[in-house]
Amino acid sequence: MNLILLEPGELLADGTARLADARAVHIRTVLRASAGDDLRAGIVDGAAGVARVEAIDASGVLLRCRFDLPVPARPAVDLLLALPRPKVMRRLWAQLAALGVGRIVLTNAEKVERHYFDTHVLTPECYRPLLIEGLQQARDTRLPQVSLHRQFRVLVEDDLDALCGPAERILAHPGSARALGQVAAERTRSRVLLAVGPEGGWNAFETALLERAGFVAAGMGPRTLRSDTACVAMLAIVHEALRAARPPA
Amino acid sequence: MNLILLEPGELLADGTARLADARAVHIRTVLRASAGDDLRAGIVDGAAGVARVEAIDASGVLLRCRFDLPVPARPAVDLLLALPRPKVMRRLWAQLAALGVGRIVLTNAEKVERHYFDTHVLTPECYRPLLIEGLQQARDTRLPQVSLHRQFRVLVEDDLDALCGPAERILAHPGSARALGQVAAERTRSRVLLAVGPEGGWNAFETALLERAGFVAAGMGPRTLRSDTACVAMLAIVHEALRAARPPA
Repeated sequence: MNLILLEPGELLADGTARLADARAVHIRTVLRASAGDDLRAGIVDGAAGVARVEAIDASGVLLRCRFDLPVPARPAVDLLLALPRPKVMRRLWAQLAALGVGRIVLTNAEKVERHYFDTHVLTPECYRPLLIEGLQQARDTRLPQVSLHRQFRVLVEDDLDALCGPAERILAHPGSARALGQVAAERTRSRVLLAVGPEGGWNAFETALLERAGFVAAGMGPRTLRSDTACVAMLAIVHEALRAARPPA
Repeated sequence: MNLILLEPGELLADGTARLADARAVHIRTVLRASAGDDLRAGIVDGAAGVARVEAIDASGVLLRCRFDLPVPARPAVDLLLALPRPKVMRRLWAQLAALGVGRIVLTNAEKVERHYFDTHVLTPECYRPLLIEGLQQARDTRLPQVSLHRQFRVLVEDDLDALCGPAERILAHPGSARALGQVAAERTRSRVLLAVGPEGGWNAFETALLERAGFVAAGMGPRTLRSDTACVAMLAIVHEALRAARPPA
């Protein structure tokens, strides 16, 4: 935990916050903080800064917060992901938030099994703490927005523009001759929307629909990756291409 | 499973192989193969090609193999990794093999806890099947070589040259101003050896030792990643840089 994230309601008007959950245990037993220590902290979807430990014992931690750093920019990449099986999706939440995504759009596809939608892994009660875990790891405060779509065609034809706004659209396609890093590097003027298919790939109808919606295919060489490995690998490559094109101020 | 891998001893002199384990179940219930079907297959550390299903039932699968494709090239990237905790290492084996690494060098470091070395996750009985799972996913046959080193200094000063041979050495360093993709793209003449530190980072002594041994620091921007996410992300970026510089023949 490289940044302690508070929910907006946890920060009191006097600038203090009292934690008594896993974060308090982490501050005491992993960070081994004592009264007077300063910790990096922030508010979910808000500013970051410093939280000074005012008091700490087995019952919890009292923090005095000075969140005077600006709200971080929203990550410039959104992800359109064919829903993977629950075990894989569970593992992905924190990693996606850590790598940085503005929005996670989960969709049906022919090769997505119906029962994948019936899991508690898709409830905010399950995924929100995992996303926050990833943000705390990466020192970000911007919670990815999540939406779930059971009708692929309706999503792509009717909803995607409003959901993701203008973006360069890239379709991960194993075996594509165009390299993902190159395609991303040529498209750095706006946000990027990256589509990652199901374990068995998009079918021909789905691929055609995505291409009609402006997605350009790009690949990562001849190796076929599991969809969670592919997500992490592709987000890393796209972020790296964007960083190279847009050096930090 | 995008390629069925056989152990060298499983291929009989007459070109047949009989499987009765999880691969047979996979061929029957996931690939839904029938007699006469051709499957991609190969030999661990050997050639790949086609295996024709001669007979298939609940007791197993009889394959007739024609492995006439060349042995794939060894992946051009090796990984020097400070041993992560067992649960994370367990998840990494298949992903590393799928992304492609020639060699996995696991090392101690100040921030590696001693008990991480006492796990069955580091026994070949545990990791070999996981590496093979990753190869079968990525359609590769080249099994990463694995070695385990409890003395960091001895490894870096005495053993690394012999283990990994000549290679461009890159040290993953969160916050480094040099971008990993750029550093890798400038170093594409030989193999790459990528060093990824423990969850809390290398200490100053370890960093200095690596730099004296020729490692150049490179980063992936301001986000701190969990070591498994970092491994996948960095291997993806380095492979992408190498592919861009060395287009396939």
